[in-house]
Amino acid sequence: MTTFSFRLIATDGEARHGEITTPHGPVATPAFMPIGTQATVKGLAPETVRAAGADIVLGNTYHLMLRPGAERIAALGGLHKFMNWPHAILTDSGGFQVMSLSELRKIDERHVTFRSHLDGAMVELSPERAVEIQALLGADIAMQLDECVKLPAARADIERAMRLSLRWAERCKRAFGDGGGRALFGIVQGGDDAGLRGESVRALVDIGFHGYAIGGLAVGESPEVTLRVVEEVAPALPADRLRYLMGVGTPENLLDAVARGIDMFDCVLPTRNGRHGVAFTRRGPVSLKNARHAADPRPLDEESACAAARTYSRAYLHHLVKANEMLGAMLLSEINVAYYQELMAGMRKAIAAGRFHDFAAEAKAAWAQGDLPPQ
Amino acid sequence: MTTFSFRLIATDGEARHGEITTPHGPVATPAFMPIGTQATVKGLAPETVRAAGADIVLGNTYHLMLRPGAERIAALGGLHKFMNWPHAILTDSGGFQVMSLSELRKIDERHVTFRSHLDGAMVELSPERAVEIQALLGADIAMQLDECVKLPAARADIERAMRLSLRWAERCKRAFGDGGGRALFGIVQGGDDAGLRGESVRALVDIGFHGYAIGGLAVGESPEVTLRVVEEVAPALPADRLRYLMGVGTPENLLDAVARGIDMFDCVLPTRNGRHGVAFTRRGPVSLKNARHAADPRPLDEESACAAARTYSRAYLHHLVKANEMLGAMLLSEINVAYYQELMAGMRKAIAAGRFHDFAAEAKAAWAQGDLPPQ
Repeated sequence: MTTFSFRLIATDGEARHGEITTPHGPVATPAFMPIGTQATVKGLAPETVRAAGADIVLGNTYHLMLRPGAERIAALGGLHKFMNWPHAILTDSGGFQVMSLSELRKIDERHVTFRSHLDGAMVELSPERAVEIQALLGADIAMQLDECVKLPAARADIERAMRLSLRWAERCKRAFGDGGGRALFGIVQGGDDAGLRGESVRALVDIGFHGYAIGGLAVGESPEVTLRVVEEVAPALPADRLRYLMGVGTPENLLDAVARGIDMFDCVLPTRNGRHGVAFTRRGPVSLKNARHAADPRPLDEESACAAARTYSRAYLHHLVKANEMLGAMLLSEINVAYYQELMAGMRKAIAAGRFHDFAAEAKAAWAQGDLPPQ
Repeated sequence: MTTFSFRLIATDGEARHGEITTPHGPVATPAFMPIGTQATVKGLAPETVRAAGADIVLGNTYHLMLRPGAERIAALGGLHKFMNWPHAILTDSGGFQVMSLSELRKIDERHVTFRSHLDGAMVELSPERAVEIQALLGADIAMQLDECVKLPAARADIERAMRLSLRWAERCKRAFGDGGGRALFGIVQGGDDAGLRGESVRALVDIGFHGYAIGGLAVGESPEVTLRVVEEVAPALPADRLRYLMGVGTPENLLDAVARGIDMFDCVLPTRNGRHGVAFTRRGPVSLKNARHAADPRPLDEESACAAARTYSRAYLHHLVKANEMLGAMLLSEINVAYYQELMAGMRKAIAAGRFHDFAAEAKAAWAQGDLPPQ
């Protein structure tokens, strides 16, 4: 089996273009990972996700451990086979969603205990169990279990969670062993405090991971704080390891974070907005609910690489959204995932050509221009 | 533009195999039409419907006239272009759904008046307007406006509605003119009364249509009554014209009706059951909600012509249905539409080979055998 590795191909300022080798094929970076929460990217067949340009998707340990269960997926041949996605998969550790979705959670040194949002059963998740679950799923990239604190928070709370996350990082590393060619990422915590973030980085690098995620962002802080933390943390991370900004974000967030040295992203926005009638396009977001589209025969974007964005009229997409037809959510999710992938491909090409700054300026100018004027 | 025509290719007992020529391509009969109520077959991209084997879909005049409106669809280039379905389309007249969906409906000689279920607006639908709407949509096959009575009903009510439907049939024929190469079908009414059905047939044939539908069935009567009416009506219809049994049915209903000389069908079952976790297979219906599938690695049917039925495990389909994921409804709708098309293709081949009786017996035996035993 191919062993996980990462190779930097080009840099342009802080922006980086590279390639990950995984047991399930290559992943070009910077990479955006569509989210396959419950072993499916919502509203999209796996071949549609692939055709949209994705090399890798994210699976949610929290959801999958509760339903259908990690042991069941392992018995069925692993998550790749289960969801018919033969390409790379990263799984989160479950920690973030334990905090956001479950009730009656209790954290102690050993583990987090929580009540399942599905059937009320009490469930334990330790660093060792998080690593075990992700091995059962067969993730190409596993994440350490961490404790994520919503911002704003008191410095003492942020510090306590950061230090617990470091101790859990060590336990995850030990439990992971050599991982059989798969990768384990540590997660930098420390909230909006530069000192705590720096301490987290140094300790994680000492432990040693295949990549480092920046966690605890996109949890209520302002966009300025997000970017400042990324600016502080990214340069402190080893250049030959991957950098993953968790839970981010809008197309603009992606440009800004790649400009600051981030390699990987995940976010529900493309599929969630697609289900709510909003398309991402070269000219910014477009709400298909808006009545101005009702009689518009033009496609969403005739220059898109995505056939759905070129084929269907705005009037038809508007109709599907108004009529609450599944096909509306399906097509807009496809269009959005494809737009995100097109944006990442553009960034990679621009970095390789040494023109990332211009590419970012052009993309932002096009978004600022806004959607096509009415006919 | 190609002009509508029908050619009988083979008969086997009462069962008929033929080919319809339409302005939007050929339709092999016996044909099953998936229902595209609101200009989309629920949960399926049009290329998926095509790949499943459908030559023709049905559009609902009632829904489309209310939203987005027939004039709007015409301005956008017609229904084929609007929904990106370049193949044949039959539209119903709206009459049936006025009766079943709208409130405050009032029928008089001139037209039916009803309150839209969407915005409460009062809307009129006359025979002439029904024909006009279907021309605006660009349907390859339009249906006359009729009045459909739910069974059981008093003979006097059935008779009154049948006679009104005949007068409306004449008005539709007049309004339709030469139809520019498109087709208009009359609808046989008369409930479960053989005498009234016979009178309806004779009067409609006198007016002259490209095809004849049997309406007013699958509206509450027993399966025995449905089949008896089909047995009485079908042989009385001209052999060189199409025979369409509206709103039917299960796979078994289709076999039984083809055996009695029916050429065309429509029904919501494949997509509706798909959205509710039930798959149609060679071995009968299978509920994926059932816990017996939870750990089953086998595909639904490894001999299916539909890739989705061969690719995904029962455990995965069960998971998607339990987790209420869109992909579950999408895959099961695809599998069901494909199964219906595979069944129709099997019937056509069997009729051409003079072995329809054996084919029907084999299909029923396989259904009776039931789903695979647990592993």
